[in-house]
Amino acid sequence: MTFSGDLLIGGANVRGAAATFSAINPANGSAMDPTFAGATKEQVEMATALAWAAFPVYKETTLEDRAHFLEAIAEGIIALGDDLILRAMDETGLPRTRIEAERARTVGQLRLFAKEVRDGKFQKLRFDPADADRKPVAKPDLRLRNIALGPVAVFGASNFPLAFSVAGGDTASALAAGCPVVVKAHSAHPGTSALVGKAVVDAVAACGLPPGTFALLFDAGFEVGQTLVADPRIRAVGFTGSRRGGTALMKIASERKQPIPVYAEMSSINPVILYPSALRNRGSKIGTSFATALTLGAGQFCTNPGLIIAVDGPGLDAFIESASAAISEAQAQTMLTGGICEAYRKGVARLSSSSSVSQVAAGKNGTSYQAAAALFETTAAAFLCDPALQEEVFGASGLIVRCKHETELREVIESLEGQLTIALHVDAEDIAAASTIIPQLELLAGRLLVNGFGTGVEVSPAMVHGGPYPATSDGRSTSVGTLAIYRFLRPVSYQDFPAELLPEPLRRS
Amino acid sequence: MTFSGDLLIGGANVRGAAATFSAINPANGSAMDPTFAGATKEQVEMATALAWAAFPVYKETTLEDRAHFLEAIAEGIIALGDDLILRAMDETGLPRTRIEAERARTVGQLRLFAKEVRDGKFQKLRFDPADADRKPVAKPDLRLRNIALGPVAVFGASNFPLAFSVAGGDTASALAAGCPVVVKAHSAHPGTSALVGKAVVDAVAACGLPPGTFALLFDAGFEVGQTLVADPRIRAVGFTGSRRGGTALMKIASERKQPIPVYAEMSSINPVILYPSALRNRGSKIGTSFATALTLGAGQFCTNPGLIIAVDGPGLDAFIESASAAISEAQAQTMLTGGICEAYRKGVARLSSSSSVSQVAAGKNGTSYQAAAALFETTAAAFLCDPALQEEVFGASGLIVRCKHETELREVIESLEGQLTIALHVDAEDIAAASTIIPQLELLAGRLLVNGFGTGVEVSPAMVHGGPYPATSDGRSTSVGTLAIYRFLRPVSYQDFPAELLPEPLRRS
Repeated sequence: MTFSGDLLIGGANVRGAAATFSAINPANGSAMDPTFAGATKEQVEMATALAWAAFPVYKETTLEDRAHFLEAIAEGIIALGDDLILRAMDETGLPRTRIEAERARTVGQLRLFAKEVRDGKFQKLRFDPADADRKPVAKPDLRLRNIALGPVAVFGASNFPLAFSVAGGDTASALAAGCPVVVKAHSAHPGTSALVGKAVVDAVAACGLPPGTFALLFDAGFEVGQTLVADPRIRAVGFTGSRRGGTALMKIASERKQPIPVYAEMSSINPVILYPSALRNRGSKIGTSFATALTLGAGQFCTNPGLIIAVDGPGLDAFIESASAAISEAQAQTMLTGGICEAYRKGVARLSSSSSVSQVAAGKNGTSYQAAAALFETTAAAFLCDPALQEEVFGASGLIVRCKHETELREVIESLEGQLTIALHVDAEDIAAASTIIPQLELLAGRLLVNGFGTGVEVSPAMVHGGPYPATSDGRSTSVGTLAIYRFLRPVSYQDFPAELLPEPLRRS
Repeated sequence: MTFSGDLLIGGANVRGAAATFSAINPANGSAMDPTFAGATKEQVEMATALAWAAFPVYKETTLEDRAHFLEAIAEGIIALGDDLILRAMDETGLPRTRIEAERARTVGQLRLFAKEVRDGKFQKLRFDPADADRKPVAKPDLRLRNIALGPVAVFGASNFPLAFSVAGGDTASALAAGCPVVVKAHSAHPGTSALVGKAVVDAVAACGLPPGTFALLFDAGFEVGQTLVADPRIRAVGFTGSRRGGTALMKIASERKQPIPVYAEMSSINPVILYPSALRNRGSKIGTSFATALTLGAGQFCTNPGLIIAVDGPGLDAFIESASAAISEAQAQTMLTGGICEAYRKGVARLSSSSSVSQVAAGKNGTSYQAAAALFETTAAAFLCDPALQEEVFGASGLIVRCKHETELREVIESLEGQLTIALHVDAEDIAAASTIIPQLELLAGRLLVNGFGTGVEVSPAMVHGGPYPATSDGRSTSVGTLAIYRFLRPVSYQDFPAELLPEPLRRS
């Protein structure tokens, strides 16, 4: 299967007229064919104008047609076969098993949203019948439904080349809501993006939908994204990436003539709190499983456990010992891009050179394109003094905060920023102490978990992959799971409408 | 019943230590007793610190206890009797019938939210059971519930001294969600605010809730509001007022270390679109009812119909003739404050002096404290050239836009900003034309209505009192009706929690 490196606008290949770039194989730094060309401002506007034109038609597709479209995208992705898998592996440095699992997740997500669309509950239909006899004034007939916000700009994420990229969670939930989507591909995996984009475009055509329902844009820099978010026809934004990137988009969106919601999933260090009894009974075992979670996928998960908080004691020493042993044996891994690898090394160097932090373990070194895992330790007092220690080091780097007593542990928790996840490791005797801290943790994270780690985000109705700022831009939302569809909807009320003017779903008497 | 003009913090009267002010009777400009004293920054922080301390307890009150609390506030307001009615009349210039109706609405709102709380559906409990046998990995147990965002700052609205003030819609929905509330009273009706505030404080005490669950602050200026919105313990804002005020709060909220949602209901001119057949058949009758809606309550409703859009023809002339006749007979009315009256006069003068606008009717003049209704006319061409003609003139002033043909009418609609409501007047022969425009209107307003006017906002499950910016700061929400509770909630997911650690509502197996 070949692809040209062209933009996909209005169902057609359009050669970008801005700067060109190539995908780089992060395992060896080599450039890959073909050359991709970025979109100009005019080309971005061509895509948003078509999305705007498609919107009234697409938003009123029947639930069955929309569900079928999502399923057709899923089938198209499967039909790409090994071409997709191999290209994604080359562009991301991720192994086959991971890419295959991610494809399964991506396809599963699309099918789950198809089911959610068919179910129709997301429309939140409400009926308040009229009452002409009510005193002192007659009651009008009121009906309500959720409608789609409008065209959505989706930013592909570097760390999920399939599941949070061109046809990933943001796109699937926006399309499910009835919103056309314009994707800004991540420049780290443009070939993967082109292949999946073609599958979406083919599904748009096969389902007879307006060609503006979907577009795929490339960019060597940041301009396409900035132009998209400022475009008046774009009505919401889905983003997964850095805090700097997310807050920049939030600023653009808030300064528009008509501000729009930005759903940016940004940074999280996913604290893990180890309780005394759990540490005493199985500190060593927790240490081993922590090391596995930390190094999984080179630590490039939003939910990677980057911070361990525990009260000092022999259990904690056992934890550190086993975690250190496992990390010392961990192979170096290729990171997603050279830039990410460099940022990781800088983050590790920053911790290494901090006078209040000591390194307790280092993974094996690899090629110059690979990163070694790292484990650090500091005291609660030092952690409380230095907010920089809360900054995410994206990759397999963890920091243990050793607290003198439970009061210090609570102070450390109190100092935390918003998170995607917080994990507790507890045994029966820890429950009483842990239960008093849950209300505080609820305010800090979108998902709390017991005796596990946040990696492995279930795509299901009860999942929240979100959390208070700065974990995300909007702690009232989730980007994973069926609730994600609500990000792209708003309620509209229809008063005393004759049946002929009512939207079809509200026409029952 | 007397009141001191003190702040209400932690259940106690606290004398404000900032600048003092008095309520002014807008009907005659006279100052009323007592003297109110504004809160200092320290006093604001005293209130937010207590709200923060109350939050973990209040948010976990049982549904029954919380519902009972809302009902106790309603009873307390009723128990204030005529003292409340008389003070509100004196402070607002609104007649007894209106204040009594507004009290009924306020009490009804509190009781409706009590019912909504008891019902419990707002918690959105979700259960995804574990599946240890799932391949390739076991499925964890996931449970989800909505929790309260945290303490909410509520700004009393000048135009609803009861229903959108101290214990109005924002306060009722925030308390229902489990959020403590700190109210910044509107300086136009501080006595009314003090009376209702005392009723809330008494309900807090009678229900054994933490004293920080509610506070009432006064301010002669804007500082208390600004300090509140910037306070890290405040987690959401409810506001009804001007666009300038609302956007200022949005800016403060977005620049915080942790940005928070602001639900600001700001400005709307509530366009009314008159279709040819309706005009032909009953233009004169529509004109009379329009005049009634325009002048109701001196036009001081957020949903006041300020813009009429219609295609030229004899039906439109009949409409204008009857509307003009009715408006010419309309008595001048006292406005809510001297400042509002002055702003209204300036707005009317601006339209009068515009070369592209002609005045077609003027209401009767009254005292120097009263405002006369006004009706203006312009062409579609002029309206499209001058965005200032879309600016809200708060009060009983309307502008008719005469369009040459349906194409111009569509262009005018296309040019509109976001609105709270849009009304259509149609007869059977208009349905075909109107139906093609509904999708466009859905994107412009939170509520669409047929053959009526937006004044009279039903408090019910299918009501949306919201709409795209600049009608509100967040078009995904409503400030009236049961859906308003969702503004103050966010989802949290609990993974693999032992029963003892789960919040009570999620403890079923």
